[in-house]
Amino acid sequence: MPQTTRILLPESAIPTHWYNVVADMPNPPEPVLGADGKALSPDALSAIFPDALIEQEVSRERWIPIPQEVRELYQLWRPTALVRAHRLEAALGTPARIYYKYEGASPAGSHKLNSALPQAYYNKREGITRLTTETGAGQWGSSLSFAGGVFGIDVRVYMVRVSYQQKPFRRSMMQTWGAEVLASPSELTASGRAALAAHPDSPGSLGLAIAEAVEEAAGRADTNYALGSVLNHVLLHQTVIGLEAKQQFEIAGDWPDMIFAPCGGGSNFGGIAFPFLADNAAGKKPVRLVAVEPTSCPSLTRGHYAYDFGDAVGLTPLMKQYTLGHDFMPPGIHAGGLRHHGASSLVSQLYHEGLVEAVSVPQLATFEAGITFARSEGIIPAPESCHAIRACIDEALRCKQSGEAKTLFFNLSGHGHFDMASYDRYFAGELEDFDYPAEAIRDALARLPRVAEGV
Amino acid sequence: MPQTTRILLPESAIPTHWYNVVADMPNPPEPVLGADGKALSPDALSAIFPDALIEQEVSRERWIPIPQEVRELYQLWRPTALVRAHRLEAALGTPARIYYKYEGASPAGSHKLNSALPQAYYNKREGITRLTTETGAGQWGSSLSFAGGVFGIDVRVYMVRVSYQQKPFRRSMMQTWGAEVLASPSELTASGRAALAAHPDSPGSLGLAIAEAVEEAAGRADTNYALGSVLNHVLLHQTVIGLEAKQQFEIAGDWPDMIFAPCGGGSNFGGIAFPFLADNAAGKKPVRLVAVEPTSCPSLTRGHYAYDFGDAVGLTPLMKQYTLGHDFMPPGIHAGGLRHHGASSLVSQLYHEGLVEAVSVPQLATFEAGITFARSEGIIPAPESCHAIRACIDEALRCKQSGEAKTLFFNLSGHGHFDMASYDRYFAGELEDFDYPAEAIRDALARLPRVAEGV
Repeated sequence: MPQTTRILLPESAIPTHWYNVVADMPNPPEPVLGADGKALSPDALSAIFPDALIEQEVSRERWIPIPQEVRELYQLWRPTALVRAHRLEAALGTPARIYYKYEGASPAGSHKLNSALPQAYYNKREGITRLTTETGAGQWGSSLSFAGGVFGIDVRVYMVRVSYQQKPFRRSMMQTWGAEVLASPSELTASGRAALAAHPDSPGSLGLAIAEAVEEAAGRADTNYALGSVLNHVLLHQTVIGLEAKQQFEIAGDWPDMIFAPCGGGSNFGGIAFPFLADNAAGKKPVRLVAVEPTSCPSLTRGHYAYDFGDAVGLTPLMKQYTLGHDFMPPGIHAGGLRHHGASSLVSQLYHEGLVEAVSVPQLATFEAGITFARSEGIIPAPESCHAIRACIDEALRCKQSGEAKTLFFNLSGHGHFDMASYDRYFAGELEDFDYPAEAIRDALARLPRVAEGV
Repeated sequence: MPQTTRILLPESAIPTHWYNVVADMPNPPEPVLGADGKALSPDALSAIFPDALIEQEVSRERWIPIPQEVRELYQLWRPTALVRAHRLEAALGTPARIYYKYEGASPAGSHKLNSALPQAYYNKREGITRLTTETGAGQWGSSLSFAGGVFGIDVRVYMVRVSYQQKPFRRSMMQTWGAEVLASPSELTASGRAALAAHPDSPGSLGLAIAEAVEEAAGRADTNYALGSVLNHVLLHQTVIGLEAKQQFEIAGDWPDMIFAPCGGGSNFGGIAFPFLADNAAGKKPVRLVAVEPTSCPSLTRGHYAYDFGDAVGLTPLMKQYTLGHDFMPPGIHAGGLRHHGASSLVSQLYHEGLVEAVSVPQLATFEAGITFARSEGIIPAPESCHAIRACIDEALRCKQSGEAKTLFFNLSGHGHFDMASYDRYFAGELEDFDYPAEAIRDALARLPRVAEGV
């Protein structure tokens, strides 16, 4: 028999609990603040979130049980394979051992479904019949569309207008699962109307789409809002990735030296990295946890650690985060999932405390890495995932220089089947790198909400 | 623990041999004929195929070993899951047990890679450095593009012009894996030039693209041709599907009563059905094997069993087959993979002898079935696969009427991520059913090659 390629787990190995990294953080999470600068009571969020998710948002319990209904739905595609990338290693000529976790195997094509299903479940349980959300690249909107359908919840997706136009097939996918998809900014909300009044041709932004979805949910009793990243409960749900991976590394008789994941809002990175951070905290062989972001939207590597809003308009509470300023408008890079102005509070705090690392990589190099991967391993990766692949390949090439046989592990968070237009533009030489000018970042940070000054 | 959803196999369960149905057929296959009506010597094919594949084409051995290199490449995604469709059963309210084999898990998105890899392997072993092929829907062209890259073989794909224009992202996918993609008819071949001279705006056809690819391969010593369906060796390679499924049904403690697969050229159907036909031949509990074709291209259900060419121009040898006439131009239905004028000789003969069945289903009903499937099981199926789903759902609904708890099994041969434009047209009400007029079929059959008369 040849060497093992895919390390599989039985369905019984799907985790029974999510892992809450808060239990192992050296300091408690920074509080969420209201517009008045005072710590917000959790039930202030109840206009848009169900109680169960608010409880998860503030929980300090290490283990949170996964409802049986959710585990059964995870069985549609989980456990996902841990794959040893033999052919990529050979193509690079590296002594490093490279593994990836393939989250693109989900029906919606990315890890996002791990959180969409429990979010829909808890909302349904509390009598909610409608959900609003935003989507940029379309991965999150697709996932919530399917999850809503499963639980008989109507889903309305505010899709960033530029994505709505450039990615019609993500839209078709959401419609196939029964959701309603609107281009944002729309005429349906005050936030959208204001944006259109100022810029009739506005291409939209993730922050603006969030504002529209939150505004609608806050105004209707039957409607809640669901977010695909950033918040603690979303990162919590994604820990199934890392928890499965740890079981798979035990089977492989190996253990990562370094883990790489793309980082926009942080759910991809938190999902794979946090369960290993628990072992770091417990004093096991330390694993370096590397968040990979684009040079064009470098919140961790070039942003400021401060209180800021989660949306572009200022409707959300204030969260301590590495941010480029909530009205930061990143250039049109093709990894739409990484175009968020700030990182999750949990990832930000862990980064601030030196427990996780971050690097930024330029766009062209990420596509080059994605193509190298596709030609050796087969799967064509999503542009977001290409960021992790780039950083992992860079490390593998350093290992080639040094002769070190490190074990490298990355999250292949999604496939690129709905991103081929970006690959086309790369092949046509139409993409370019973008390094955000220092002054622009300074300007955006100068517009941080005033309350940040006092904290 | 909830009920099992996905029945997985370890990598060691990847078959070591392909199953050759010829060994279990009651009568030997009808011979392939030259243009003169005489049986063709196998080495007449050596201008375009490597010896190893020609041997497989005419072999009567029951088991043909899978080269170790090919098995290792199969490990990139095989064994594929056998999935119990609990949620589809519940949605239909049927007592039937429904299973599907998910071949869309391959990097290229369909079962076609099962044959592309061994075809590239054998060509490489015999010194071939270039391959030509055709593609309609793009599934086969994608698979051969990746497989060629793996073995360092340059691949040129003649893509039916209408697909080339309508499915630019399948083209990008092939380019990502390093292949060259041309719209057919092209100016590069005599067949293409003749077609363009007659119809400058020709949308192309699969038969014409085959003619171009064969013509180029026949004229160059370094170049062979690769076909994605129809031929015996292609169906042989696809039997990994059924062979794995049999192991999985043993684990599940269940056994199919009926198997459904889309049938165009026949590789999808042969791959899943033939290994079960072996058990039928051995006197085990009989399994009904149902080939599902579109009403708009009904070669088995409405064609004639006669000798005909494999391409539109008449460059290939003559094969006994259920055919609508080699110059039959099917209407533009969206299941491009099922738009071939004839069925494989093996499937045709088994159908003629009553060992397999066939049904035809109209287009609109296939999309409706695909959407029902997507909303319950998650995966959005390729339009080709929707044909099998339709026939399976129809049987499940009959079971609901009769109260029978049959075990139904279908091949989910590919995902629909590159077919969302077809779903869009379905949602927009722009698709229609097409029932081929009897006179048109009579006319096409009147143009069958004369040699057919004498056999």
